[in-house]
Amino acid sequence: MDFDVIVVGSGPGGYVTAIRASQLGFKTAVVEKENLGGVCLNWGCIPTKALLKSAQVFDYINHASDYGITVKDFDKDFDAVVKRSRGVADGMSNGVAFLMKKNKITVLEGYGKVKPGKKVDVDGKEYSAEHIIIATGARSRELPNLPQDGKKIIGYREAMTLKKQPKKMVVVGSGAIGVEFAYFYATMGTEVTIVEYMPNIVPVEDVEVSKQLERSFKKAKIGIKTNAEVTSVDTSGTGCKVNVKTKKGEEVIEADIVLSAVGITPNIEGIGLEDVGIATDKGRVLVNDYYQTNVPGYYAIGDIVPGQALAHVASAEGILCVEKIAGQHVEPIDYNNIPGCTYCFPEVASVGYTEAAAKEAGYEVKVGKFPFSASGKASAAGHKDGFVKVIYDAKYGEMLGCHMIGSNVTEMIAEAVVARKLETTGHEILKAVHPHPTLSEAVMEATAAAYDEVIHL
Amino acid sequence: MDFDVIVVGSGPGGYVTAIRASQLGFKTAVVEKENLGGVCLNWGCIPTKALLKSAQVFDYINHASDYGITVKDFDKDFDAVVKRSRGVADGMSNGVAFLMKKNKITVLEGYGKVKPGKKVDVDGKEYSAEHIIIATGARSRELPNLPQDGKKIIGYREAMTLKKQPKKMVVVGSGAIGVEFAYFYATMGTEVTIVEYMPNIVPVEDVEVSKQLERSFKKAKIGIKTNAEVTSVDTSGTGCKVNVKTKKGEEVIEADIVLSAVGITPNIEGIGLEDVGIATDKGRVLVNDYYQTNVPGYYAIGDIVPGQALAHVASAEGILCVEKIAGQHVEPIDYNNIPGCTYCFPEVASVGYTEAAAKEAGYEVKVGKFPFSASGKASAAGHKDGFVKVIYDAKYGEMLGCHMIGSNVTEMIAEAVVARKLETTGHEILKAVHPHPTLSEAVMEATAAAYDEVIHL
Repeated sequence: MDFDVIVVGSGPGGYVTAIRASQLGFKTAVVEKENLGGVCLNWGCIPTKALLKSAQVFDYINHASDYGITVKDFDKDFDAVVKRSRGVADGMSNGVAFLMKKNKITVLEGYGKVKPGKKVDVDGKEYSAEHIIIATGARSRELPNLPQDGKKIIGYREAMTLKKQPKKMVVVGSGAIGVEFAYFYATMGTEVTIVEYMPNIVPVEDVEVSKQLERSFKKAKIGIKTNAEVTSVDTSGTGCKVNVKTKKGEEVIEADIVLSAVGITPNIEGIGLEDVGIATDKGRVLVNDYYQTNVPGYYAIGDIVPGQALAHVASAEGILCVEKIAGQHVEPIDYNNIPGCTYCFPEVASVGYTEAAAKEAGYEVKVGKFPFSASGKASAAGHKDGFVKVIYDAKYGEMLGCHMIGSNVTEMIAEAVVARKLETTGHEILKAVHPHPTLSEAVMEATAAAYDEVIHL
Repeated sequence: MDFDVIVVGSGPGGYVTAIRASQLGFKTAVVEKENLGGVCLNWGCIPTKALLKSAQVFDYINHASDYGITVKDFDKDFDAVVKRSRGVADGMSNGVAFLMKKNKITVLEGYGKVKPGKKVDVDGKEYSAEHIIIATGARSRELPNLPQDGKKIIGYREAMTLKKQPKKMVVVGSGAIGVEFAYFYATMGTEVTIVEYMPNIVPVEDVEVSKQLERSFKKAKIGIKTNAEVTSVDTSGTGCKVNVKTKKGEEVIEADIVLSAVGITPNIEGIGLEDVGIATDKGRVLVNDYYQTNVPGYYAIGDIVPGQALAHVASAEGILCVEKIAGQHVEPIDYNNIPGCTYCFPEVASVGYTEAAAKEAGYEVKVGKFPFSASGKASAAGHKDGFVKVIYDAKYGEMLGCHMIGSNVTEMIAEAVVARKLETTGHEILKAVHPHPTLSEAVMEATAAAYDEVIHL
């Protein structure tokens, strides 16, 4: 065998798995066809956060007078904003290269395909390993009536490297990717319209969060069409004529660019799964709690297996997968305790059941909500939009869900994740003294509200 | 009896206590001599956060080109910055007035003095109550060789309402108040020198945090003199000549303003303690775990009792005090699980033992540190200074302390507070999936570092 472990794909699933494997003493290789770090580092999480930071700074400058600062002459340099984002992504990718070296992981550059007999073909060359972990990730999903041409109808990749800032943009889909780009472009001065098929934007979130984000986005002059569908796009002229069907009828929205952000498609084709006989279902690889496929020695993690298609999930799955291979005692991941974060402004972060889902699951719930309009820190920061909402099981006091929208909430949700991990009760959260003045107090106050003990409402 | 409960002082101890008392069914009054909300709302936590937010925005504008934004013509309007801060404070104080009304709490305006026989004198008028809770807070501490004249040698109150921005300022003391003002004024363009008696700034923090803040402050051109002492200030000329004794000898620093930020003095004089016979020691009122003084029916909370002089501690003490009075089952506050936050930039937040304190207490420790320079989110935000440091008990895996310095860490420390409240082990923190990309991942990574499992280092 050439290696103990070969990981196919070097995204946040793959490269993290390779590092953990190496730590555990395995001779490890990772296969990458493009850039180390995969979509997350190069075309996803990281470069978008860089763009969004530029938008945040630009937003502060636009509102500088609210803070006692006079700005007379300013403008964004769209090229420089994009260039900065690329620089951040390149820096992180180089960081992964450094980590591979440091951990003595062999990087096999090329297109990886699994082969029977515990082998991986990399651009025609074969490597063998006791354990082959497939972590090939996903790509932008294409809708039949929204075929991406990469120029006028684009996916997230093109959206973060446009040569010219569009004047008008239609964003189709309002999951994390859709609303992040909508916020970025709108803040930079593009006229943005979101088209969402479901009744609310960020449709996986608690409906109160969706409603708040809609209010905030409307204030920021972002157009929102929910219960709406793009039936076709006419790109024959200079721009795009986007045909949108809503409950009120059909309408045409003109735009320079249409961004398709309707989710992702796992990369399970052309990687040899059929050849090896690895079972898939509904476009995902079937695995057990330890990410073992039906074929011994072959494993799969990340976006290609069921579960949330998120970077931190892929990393956690990969770590658990190799720890299990190493014979460590591991506990299966609790997919109901995976936080989700969206980095538009206001930010959105959540974990666990929405109120509706908790009730559907049969729980009797205690719900508490604390608005940032009642928070001293939020007032001082000038960011009063949003709230924290908590859902407790009325019977045992366990936190079933936590939903946040507001400034910096993506840094606050870890508290709820840890609390839920430990099955912390509402009363324990209430008696954990939160620092004043912080936005994180809202978790304590929302909990107090659930138990009719709220102070600042 | 006029009331069930009278609370003397309406700071974050007093007004919160009054609200909780009212919730528990007590007929409640609160005595206030100045503004509802006390120092915290009017002259402390809240207005300083407003000033610091203006400084943050100003700092972003100064560094706009780093984010791809060109700003040619800008300036701060110092008056407007101060005015905004006062507006935020006034808004919060009005909020407390609203809460008093909503909770049917009688506000007794005037100077409160406790009297024997369960009475409180308010400017000559007497009120009686079954339970009298003293929450008179604290004031800026005066050093003999640094007498505050309110003009050239000032305390925190004057520091947040100066008519004119000083060109040069000496800040004596580098606790939270000192470094927050130092950062605010330096960012606004004042030449600031910090004089600290101890070997490090923010001396209560873990020494690595102090060292990092020193590095960051020096980059921001803030002068720092540690192991140094102001022996006298000559205010006879137009400015101040500040005589500073360091290990290297004596030197004179010229400044327009000297800010004395050397701690606080509890307000225990002139409030009738002697009259009632309430015992004090070392300037603080003696209380038991439920904030009962030696005289039945009299209680004390907040800055006037032992324990950290922090707003959130005062609130927690007051809530516990009245819940005990109401006959609820309460557990004494764990003063070793009180977070402390400092809102300069980078921010500082910590809870529990420092590394030195843990070793001194006899623990065998596992220490992990994760620098934000290795965090994707920090790179994207352009805030790579700082780290998270965690200290675990090597024997049982309990988190003994968590120390953070960096962007937004004041919103991240609640995770550690809740984790410690539940006696979460390092392994549990490690397996609580933190969202990517966030700074909060650094808690997980620092923990991994403590157990030699760190991925991104």
